[in-house]
Amino acid sequence: MPMSNPDMTDPLPLAQRLIACPSVTPATGAVFEALEAMLAPLGFTVDRWITGDKPDGPVENLIALRANGPGMHFAFAGHLDVVPPGNGWASDPYQPEVRGELLHGRGAVDMKGSIASFVAALPACLDLPGSISLLITGDEEGVATYGTRAIMERMAAQGIKPDLCLVGEPTSVNRLGDMVKIGRRGSVNMWITVAGTQGHVAYPHLADNPIPRLVRILAAIEAIELDAGNDWFQPSNIEITDVSVGNEATNMIPGEARARISIRFNDIHTGAGLTERIQALVEAEGGTLTSQISGESFLTPPGEFSTLISEAITEATGLTTELSTTGGTSDARFLSALCPVVEFGLCNATMHKLDEAVAVQDLVTLRDIYTAIVRKAMVQAA
Amino acid sequence: MPMSNPDMTDPLPLAQRLIACPSVTPATGAVFEALEAMLAPLGFTVDRWITGDKPDGPVENLIALRANGPGMHFAFAGHLDVVPPGNGWASDPYQPEVRGELLHGRGAVDMKGSIASFVAALPACLDLPGSISLLITGDEEGVATYGTRAIMERMAAQGIKPDLCLVGEPTSVNRLGDMVKIGRRGSVNMWITVAGTQGHVAYPHLADNPIPRLVRILAAIEAIELDAGNDWFQPSNIEITDVSVGNEATNMIPGEARARISIRFNDIHTGAGLTERIQALVEAEGGTLTSQISGESFLTPPGEFSTLISEAITEATGLTTELSTTGGTSDARFLSALCPVVEFGLCNATMHKLDEAVAVQDLVTLRDIYTAIVRKAMVQAA
Ligand SMILES: [Zn+2]
Ligand SMILES: [Zn+2]
Repeated sequence: MPMSNPDMTDPLPLAQRLIACPSVTPATGAVFEALEAMLAPLGFTVDRWITGDKPDGPVENLIALRANGPGMHFAFAGHLDVVPPGNGWASDPYQPEVRGELLHGRGAVDMKGSIASFVAALPACLDLPGSISLLITGDEEGVATYGTRAIMERMAAQGIKPDLCLVGEPTSVNRLGDMVKIGRRGSVNMWITVAGTQGHVAYPHLADNPIPRLVRILAAIEAIELDAGNDWFQPSNIEITDVSVGNEATNMIPGEARARISIRFNDIHTGAGLTERIQALVEAEGGTLTSQISGESFLTPPGEFSTLISEAITEATGLTTELSTTGGTSDARFLSALCPVVEFGLCNATMHKLDEAVAVQDLVTLRDIYTAIVRKAMVQAA
Repeated sequence: MPMSNPDMTDPLPLAQRLIACPSVTPATGAVFEALEAMLAPLGFTVDRWITGDKPDGPVENLIALRANGPGMHFAFAGHLDVVPPGNGWASDPYQPEVRGELLHGRGAVDMKGSIASFVAALPACLDLPGSISLLITGDEEGVATYGTRAIMERMAAQGIKPDLCLVGEPTSVNRLGDMVKIGRRGSVNMWITVAGTQGHVAYPHLADNPIPRLVRILAAIEAIELDAGNDWFQPSNIEITDVSVGNEATNMIPGEARARISIRFNDIHTGAGLTERIQALVEAEGGTLTSQISGESFLTPPGEFSTLISEAITEATGLTTELSTTGGTSDARFLSALCPVVEFGLCNATMHKLDEAVAVQDLVTLRDIYTAIVRKAMVQAA
């Protein structure tokens, strides 16, 4: 490995610089300036642009690319936006503060810290043949309309296509390296409306109560067992998340009843297929359905990429990592259309919470793991 | 029949005087003054008192009694409170206005008009042996906490007990006299709450969604057929009138789900029995139930009282009246504990609506029917 500027290999000051730039989703500006200032000296060409209007935008996105002759293209993807800090922090969420072994600040683990660790890993990888890129959005925590999908459109227009993509989301649970995500379930929300005819409870024949029909729909939905899971996914799950009628009058039969369901589904299903299936139940009772697919499921089946990540983790930590598909969705659902995608990053215990914090040592260890992952992948391909 | 003061036998000016006193429920004051001023000259002893605190009170009630030696006690029951007029009337709801054949004003049919008709009927009945009373509350349209029940307590304390009670509610549908109520269904509202444990849809094993349990409860309730009705009642009916969860977040499993049902039941059931039955279903799913019985059912089986009312109606109108138990509840549910109760009054098409109105001729015809009813009843008893 070549020698490198020691300042640029310490992830702590890099993380502090990123945390010090407030960037509640959707984010633009200073935090991207700061990242560009770190990458440009390393020889990266940085493409930043702002897209979208309120309320889902404007969003800033960044594609940083460094080509070192022919070879594979290794991409690191992540986000610089953060969820709102909320009130009650022990220190200013935008004043990164080391107390004891921990660095506190909004984004410490999700995921300015892991971006800092990846940047700190770069100097030790610049000798490798091939291309390294960073795909960083300002909208992962929001609706993501102008986020990673916009980056992918830009890449497609420019003919940029990575061969492997590592997403820096905080996948570790109790100890850094204990879990890697090789897939995610898909997610779809559906809104059910059943219309009836309002009336007085004393004259039910003049009314048409929509609630019994909604109850039959919901009972039929509850009776569905989508699957029993498979080698890499837990069973798909349907939750009825809301029911609302909004009738305050005890003597009135309401004119409309609504419900909302949320399905987290594995790779046996598609959002469209599930929508069709629920829609049939709803329409059988005269109801209507609208559906919003937040993301399809994705799976990068265990193979070379996950194996080299597991090895890098074990070498640095001694842990045997778990290849998992649990949890919520991430931007990997989009990126998986491009190439094999695996997610690995810091411990997620404090993400989205008050006093979000990362162990300073974890930033350093993660840098070393990232370095090893990039080197193994690019050397293997060479 | 004896001659009487002609002013006191015209129901129109009497109705106008009552309508001119605003008396949105719960009512006190001027409207009771006006009624007392009509009854005192006819020899009635008028007992008025105010009871109850906000928000259900204060309520004024009136017991007017005229004893003419030994004999039966005939009671007329009703209310002087009205529902709020709302906006959009063609004329001031408290400025009684005759336009064409109709007298307009809030309370015209429900039920200042019928009280006026009964007062106008009195002069022709004063010769009869026995007692005549008017039991008039200022809270029938509200929660009725301090209404007819308070009148009944006062009567019990004074040892006053009628032998027959005619309630002047607007029971006619298309033509005056086409329907009489000999009973009413009971009414009970129940509130169901199912508690669970809030959580994230991605981690359902850490949560306990209360909605599926509520859906099972509601499906079980929907499957109940209480009865098929009987000779005098239509089938009892359960309506689910509201369901509410109040969860705005698409990715959250809610911690509580609620529903409300309304049962209108015939004399096969009691409010307590129904509560017990539904409660068992709710508790089987770990839910809790609260119940509020608005009124038990009552039935005055067809007999002497309804027959003489039917005859009086047919003599005055040529109509064959229908003895019915349909519709909402009324204060007859309380009064039926005292003696046989039948309800008969004006046409209810405009009750509780904008531009409530009564045909002036109906007031006169109703006076004549009321006169005939009182005379038939008291002569028959004598
Ligand atoms: Zn994140
Ligand atoms: Zn009424």
